[in-house]
Amino acid sequence: MSAVSVEEHAAAVETLLAALGTRTEQRIPLTEALGRVSFEDVRSPVDLPLFRNSQMDGYAVDSRSVTKTPVTLEVSTIIAAGPTESAVLVPGSAAKIMTGAPIPEGADTIVPVEDTTIPSAGSVTIERGRGAGEFVREQGSDVRVGTVLVEAGRVLEPRHISVLAAVGFAEVDVRSRPRVAVVTTGAELVDAGSTLTPGQIYDSNGITLAAHLRASGAEVVAVARSSDDPKRFREVLDEARRSAELIITSGGVSMGDFEVVKDVLGPLGGAFGSVRMQPGGPQGMTLFDGIPVLSFPGNPVSTVVSYIMFARNIVRRAAGLPPILPSTATLHESVVSPPGRRQLLRGRLCDDGRVQLVAGPGSHLVAALAWADVLIDIDSETTELAAGSDVEVWPL
Amino acid sequence: MSAVSVEEHAAAVETLLAALGTRTEQRIPLTEALGRVSFEDVRSPVDLPLFRNSQMDGYAVDSRSVTKTPVTLEVSTIIAAGPTESAVLVPGSAAKIMTGAPIPEGADTIVPVEDTTIPSAGSVTIERGRGAGEFVREQGSDVRVGTVLVEAGRVLEPRHISVLAAVGFAEVDVRSRPRVAVVTTGAELVDAGSTLTPGQIYDSNGITLAAHLRASGAEVVAVARSSDDPKRFREVLDEARRSAELIITSGGVSMGDFEVVKDVLGPLGGAFGSVRMQPGGPQGMTLFDGIPVLSFPGNPVSTVVSYIMFARNIVRRAAGLPPILPSTATLHESVVSPPGRRQLLRGRLCDDGRVQLVAGPGSHLVAALAWADVLIDIDSETTELAAGSDVEVWPL
Repeated sequence: MSAVSVEEHAAAVETLLAALGTRTEQRIPLTEALGRVSFEDVRSPVDLPLFRNSQMDGYAVDSRSVTKTPVTLEVSTIIAAGPTESAVLVPGSAAKIMTGAPIPEGADTIVPVEDTTIPSAGSVTIERGRGAGEFVREQGSDVRVGTVLVEAGRVLEPRHISVLAAVGFAEVDVRSRPRVAVVTTGAELVDAGSTLTPGQIYDSNGITLAAHLRASGAEVVAVARSSDDPKRFREVLDEARRSAELIITSGGVSMGDFEVVKDVLGPLGGAFGSVRMQPGGPQGMTLFDGIPVLSFPGNPVSTVVSYIMFARNIVRRAAGLPPILPSTATLHESVVSPPGRRQLLRGRLCDDGRVQLVAGPGSHLVAALAWADVLIDIDSETTELAAGSDVEVWPL
Repeated sequence: MSAVSVEEHAAAVETLLAALGTRTEQRIPLTEALGRVSFEDVRSPVDLPLFRNSQMDGYAVDSRSVTKTPVTLEVSTIIAAGPTESAVLVPGSAAKIMTGAPIPEGADTIVPVEDTTIPSAGSVTIERGRGAGEFVREQGSDVRVGTVLVEAGRVLEPRHISVLAAVGFAEVDVRSRPRVAVVTTGAELVDAGSTLTPGQIYDSNGITLAAHLRASGAEVVAVARSSDDPKRFREVLDEARRSAELIITSGGVSMGDFEVVKDVLGPLGGAFGSVRMQPGGPQGMTLFDGIPVLSFPGNPVSTVVSYIMFARNIVRRAAGLPPILPSTATLHESVVSPPGRRQLLRGRLCDDGRVQLVAGPGSHLVAALAWADVLIDIDSETTELAAGSDVEVWPL
């Protein structure tokens, strides 16, 4: 792989990761399903309501008994919500009934308690009659057995959880999440919380890629760090491939003397080279023992830009989530860009729809990345853009 | 509490839940911080870069040695990234240097490896010179110690996690989540997965409220179900109040003979009555042993509508999340509404910005709620709206 365009590399990555899109189902408790993606159409196993029931607290009667009001009827029974024997209304009487309770056979309307008075114990006076069907919830009037309640591919929100619970599901089949391992490299990296000696920096790529991957719907199965020792790196890769469907590495891909990722994976068939973009130029990709490995440069900003340009939407698609697409914004200030390279600048959207640069093109500006909410995408032919120009921006 | 307006009840709930807004901080590992809310401004404990380092693989030189090119220099040392002694450049020589490695004292520019050739072992020919400061990342050029990296109240995204990791934080102080318990009531309720007998229905309110609460940033500390036995309900409440700052109940608040929530909490100072809205009219609120209890009606749709109208934004505010506010949409069809009651109809937004009704006003239509993505808010004075009218809609 010599210097290629962003589009060419993205297409190659797409091919390498094609298998990631084929997902299996995973059965999980409904209580853990929020934010997961339904694997297939979910049909109702029951009618909803499950039985004909009362929409009000009141009296179940035959509507013909209450055509003339006021009328006083005997209260022949009381029907509470809850498990009950099927009841039959004594002809000409009223059954006191609670909201949600099954309506007795022979009754076809509910008179709300508000429209009644009690003349004496055991009877009720109906002040206002009701027609057949009023306040009656017919069996299946909400959902018929077999109706599709949640379509395949839906990101499950509370409202979907709600209907699945209402028809009695305790579990649901969701799309399995793509399992991704992250391997960072670099002799200069140390753990957060440690004291630094000269030449050391904190390892932020592992936790950053993990956060991005989770936000893209992936399951992060491992976050490991390797030294620049090829043997150690190989061990870490071997460990990662046991559980991962995709491995993402950071560092060790550029033109230095100690480029462990390139040195180990190059001879194993990996393609390493330069993509005409800034930041994030050096890139690699390998099919390692059947597992795809994407190799990003080690600089923290380059790593994130690489993830967004080459991996994010593939991971999201595998997870069943919609792609994050660029939108158009107006440049707040003028921009210069080197010729022959697609440039991805950190920007911040203002309330007026314009986008501001938050820092220069330096790939080490991590703080700027935290303040940025978009990447401003300047194509490789463009060397200068005036303030007020339209640009494409990628949400971060 | 007799019949009150939605606004009046909402104001009363707001007062009852005022204490929920006072949050403490919680220190959590950075790896678990995605989606949490920063408790206070987070300042950098270090400069970033932590030390002056090279932006390229190449040669560190004194720019005065390379004013005329080509020029061949002795390679006096090799500096890799990683822990190292502070180096000093032998005057007039070049130090081979890797990206990210500390620049030796006496060097002020980096010549990229692409601009060099090797005439013989131990020396390098510089084909193109560089000015002072080129490809040099100065200490603190990204972040100065003390700079605010993440402001208080930010929902932490991958980009925030990234910068916090880069400056060495292993943990972060986030806003504690409001702890909420859910108690559902109703003798007719059975667990999902069970076989129903006549009169029984599946308990969906617990799982639904839990999903909504989690989506609002709350920690759901318990989801319990009580029978209609007052003693049992009291036990469940006593248990819930041990861990919760807010208890939400469903069911047992209307006008039937067995209204366990009203029967138990009413005598303890609870206010129970009717709100002029549909669905969701019967409502209650109690300060129970110092813990606020919101009591929603038991019908699944009424429960959800109650949560959205009275609790969602209060919980979100306590969690540090922005409120979900209504927007305006155009009615796809005409709507009639009973006078004197604010009505909340289930609707679905179309791509053209219009909103369609997905079902009638019946509060038992759970399936419709799953298909709906908004509640259409019709005020209590309005009895009819023509197709094409503007209405307020609440995202679900």
